[in-house]
Amino acid sequence: MIHPWQVPPSPSSARPSSSVAAGDGLYTPSPPATTTTTTTTTTSALVELLLPESQRDAALAEAHTLPMVVLTEETDWQWLHVLSEGWASPLRGFMREEEYLQCLHFNCIRDADGHVHNQSVAIVLAITDEQRQRIESSGQDAFALSLSAQPERPVAIVRRPEFYVHNKEERCARQLGTTHAGHPYAAIIHRSGEWLVGGDVEVLQRFRYGDGLDAYRLTPRDLQAEFRRRGADAVFVFQLRNPIHNGHALLMTSCRDDLLRRGYRNPILLVHQIGGKVKQDDVPLRERILQNQQVIEEGILDPETTLLGIFPSPMMYAGPTEVQWHAKARMNAGCQFYIVGRDPAGIKHPDGERDLFDPWHGKKVLQRAPGLERLEILPFRLAAYDKTAGRMAFFDPSRADDFLFISGTKMRGFAAAGETPPEGFMGKRAWQVLADYYQRKRQAEGGK
Amino acid sequence: MIHPWQVPPSPSSARPSSSVAAGDGLYTPSPPATTTTTTTTTTSALVELLLPESQRDAALAEAHTLPMVVLTEETDWQWLHVLSEGWASPLRGFMREEEYLQCLHFNCIRDADGHVHNQSVAIVLAITDEQRQRIESSGQDAFALSLSAQPERPVAIVRRPEFYVHNKEERCARQLGTTHAGHPYAAIIHRSGEWLVGGDVEVLQRFRYGDGLDAYRLTPRDLQAEFRRRGADAVFVFQLRNPIHNGHALLMTSCRDDLLRRGYRNPILLVHQIGGKVKQDDVPLRERILQNQQVIEEGILDPETTLLGIFPSPMMYAGPTEVQWHAKARMNAGCQFYIVGRDPAGIKHPDGERDLFDPWHGKKVLQRAPGLERLEILPFRLAAYDKTAGRMAFFDPSRADDFLFISGTKMRGFAAAGETPPEGFMGKRAWQVLADYYQRKRQAEGGK
Repeated sequence: MIHPWQVPPSPSSARPSSSVAAGDGLYTPSPPATTTTTTTTTTSALVELLLPESQRDAALAEAHTLPMVVLTEETDWQWLHVLSEGWASPLRGFMREEEYLQCLHFNCIRDADGHVHNQSVAIVLAITDEQRQRIESSGQDAFALSLSAQPERPVAIVRRPEFYVHNKEERCARQLGTTHAGHPYAAIIHRSGEWLVGGDVEVLQRFRYGDGLDAYRLTPRDLQAEFRRRGADAVFVFQLRNPIHNGHALLMTSCRDDLLRRGYRNPILLVHQIGGKVKQDDVPLRERILQNQQVIEEGILDPETTLLGIFPSPMMYAGPTEVQWHAKARMNAGCQFYIVGRDPAGIKHPDGERDLFDPWHGKKVLQRAPGLERLEILPFRLAAYDKTAGRMAFFDPSRADDFLFISGTKMRGFAAAGETPPEGFMGKRAWQVLADYYQRKRQAEGGK
Repeated sequence: MIHPWQVPPSPSSARPSSSVAAGDGLYTPSPPATTTTTTTTTTSALVELLLPESQRDAALAEAHTLPMVVLTEETDWQWLHVLSEGWASPLRGFMREEEYLQCLHFNCIRDADGHVHNQSVAIVLAITDEQRQRIESSGQDAFALSLSAQPERPVAIVRRPEFYVHNKEERCARQLGTTHAGHPYAAIIHRSGEWLVGGDVEVLQRFRYGDGLDAYRLTPRDLQAEFRRRGADAVFVFQLRNPIHNGHALLMTSCRDDLLRRGYRNPILLVHQIGGKVKQDDVPLRERILQNQQVIEEGILDPETTLLGIFPSPMMYAGPTEVQWHAKARMNAGCQFYIVGRDPAGIKHPDGERDLFDPWHGKKVLQRAPGLERLEILPFRLAAYDKTAGRMAFFDPSRADDFLFISGTKMRGFAAAGETPPEGFMGKRAWQVLADYYQRKRQAEGGK
């Protein structure tokens, strides 16, 4: 578990192959000249909650006079990170009850002008009754937040707090489709405080983790600037929390070809790794980024038109609810095309081996979700290992027996057992990253 | 339990005080001349699924050639009744998966023209695997429905059936906010079939129950015609599944006064009783209607401007999810104003005495619900028994000790114990209906 601000930022390490130019304007892609398309070129205003530098000293001084809530749950500061950079625009902080209710019931929020914004996951702050009482009895109309690694150091101010009951069972039910305490995000909800507190957030410093990966943590504004710098006329994004095998790469390359055929001249691919908390048996962020780097350096994905980045959100494993969030946040970062696959943000039911969500509901819900009309959904085509060709290929049902499906679990199984997957399943150097990781893990777990 | 079509209709019994003129056109109220208002005067097209008389013989003959599904669950035929009369417009039958998913995740459905319709409750048909196989192996693209009282007699045809998995846990979670099997509607879901089947519905005969209450079962079309006949320029509705006490009456009368003050000249009140399945300890429909009749005949509600009717839907006890359904269905029937109170469609948590839903979430969710913009929500004011005045009055927190809150449970307690509530709590003849019912119930349960 890495705490942001624990160590000073190390901007020179692991920088993406292209440097990032920060810019103020919003990225507006040029439409292709020779094709009709259903996407529009408008983007919403980014709502960043990071205070301008000029105001930080005064805010920090004020924060020291306010009641302090120490964020002990990793996901809490990850959501604060998410909010600070505008991924959840137009949210101005942790949800107030009116926003929370719209999120739970409608998966979207209507703003004061009547515009509908998709917001399917609840970005809320849970506190204990003791914390609530301490804030209320302070007589102040604000409180400060700090992280457990440095509990005395304020990192944000929450203004005009609004307290409301944290109905944990109902929240799990409506967000996760189950209340089972064995679901990893339900477990977090169940151990959190009995109150939710909404309020406007001011963040005092950009989130840095000092883990050698900060250069990949591009904000929506950074991404928009980088897409503009590269002259992108279309941006398509591949969300993932897994290593990239050659089937994924085939899919991304094929999406790019489709966009070129439709008349776009310079489509840019954003390979976007979940940066926040994932469940225990997912591959850690560091190894995923190293693996993805190798895939790009080996040329399996084109380095010139691919950007590797980290999305700071935690995983909720909320399936059709969460895939909307994955799409909406990237829309805020300037993407116009979103690739959706089988069982996005899915997980096994905590009771057993069946899928918690129908594997195709994510795609269907995403295609109908209010507030995502500006985003074009690119459906995933099923890739598998073609034994006759010795490479990953799009599955051809007419010769189904020629194909081998290698799931994430199976892939981890190969790596954990020190075995090598079939030739052509994954780039060699990319595979080595995983093999090394699982070997270290095996050794740490008992040297077998 | 009364089966529709079990006995011939008895149209002369228990007819509402005004006769009902059926009409073809949709009711469009005149806006008041002297006031600004946020409601609009458009109404959506009603989608009635009752076949025209001229087509029924042929359809009946066809139905006899189709595989038959016998509806054994009371709520199934109540939903069929609801669908047949257009309360759920624009639904054309039991939900297909695309509609079901939008309902579960967004509480609304977008039609082919992009218009958003509120539809918060899933109107679905669950069948067993054996039933599914029988339909599929028939090779027909339709099946028939019958009711358990007369299993050989088709009452509807479902065309172009679409089967999808009935994820009961997820459905309960997203609709009820709990998966607890002790919730009365969760219990129905859990005992139903493992498949859902959507499809276009054709109903072969108007629903009649022969219970002496059919004259109150006005369809949305009947209601629109009646409002027009009465020259209503505003229609406000009070949804209930309880007897009416004088606090309710005060509220309704006061809403009417408000509408008059706003410039409406002839506001009509629809007192609309839930006609479908309610939980065990709710007062039965017959006694509720008799009690409501007395309230009107005693003049506690004005007979000239009040219409008593039955809404055929079952209760789901789904709180903020269900209150949207209650409002949407009445909007389809020509109402422009909806009175919402504390904890609409609420229930105690099956685990204990606490409320399952926050009592104010219903109102807040309703006020923000997509697709209900044409309906103006009139918030409930809290009425209680004013001991100093000896009557129900709006609660005045400055002299809280003068007020007595008489809950439904307390009221049933009075009646069950053969006691009389304080003078002024309820009309005398109206109370007598309840006292008689509970006395009969006591006697039936052991003569105490």
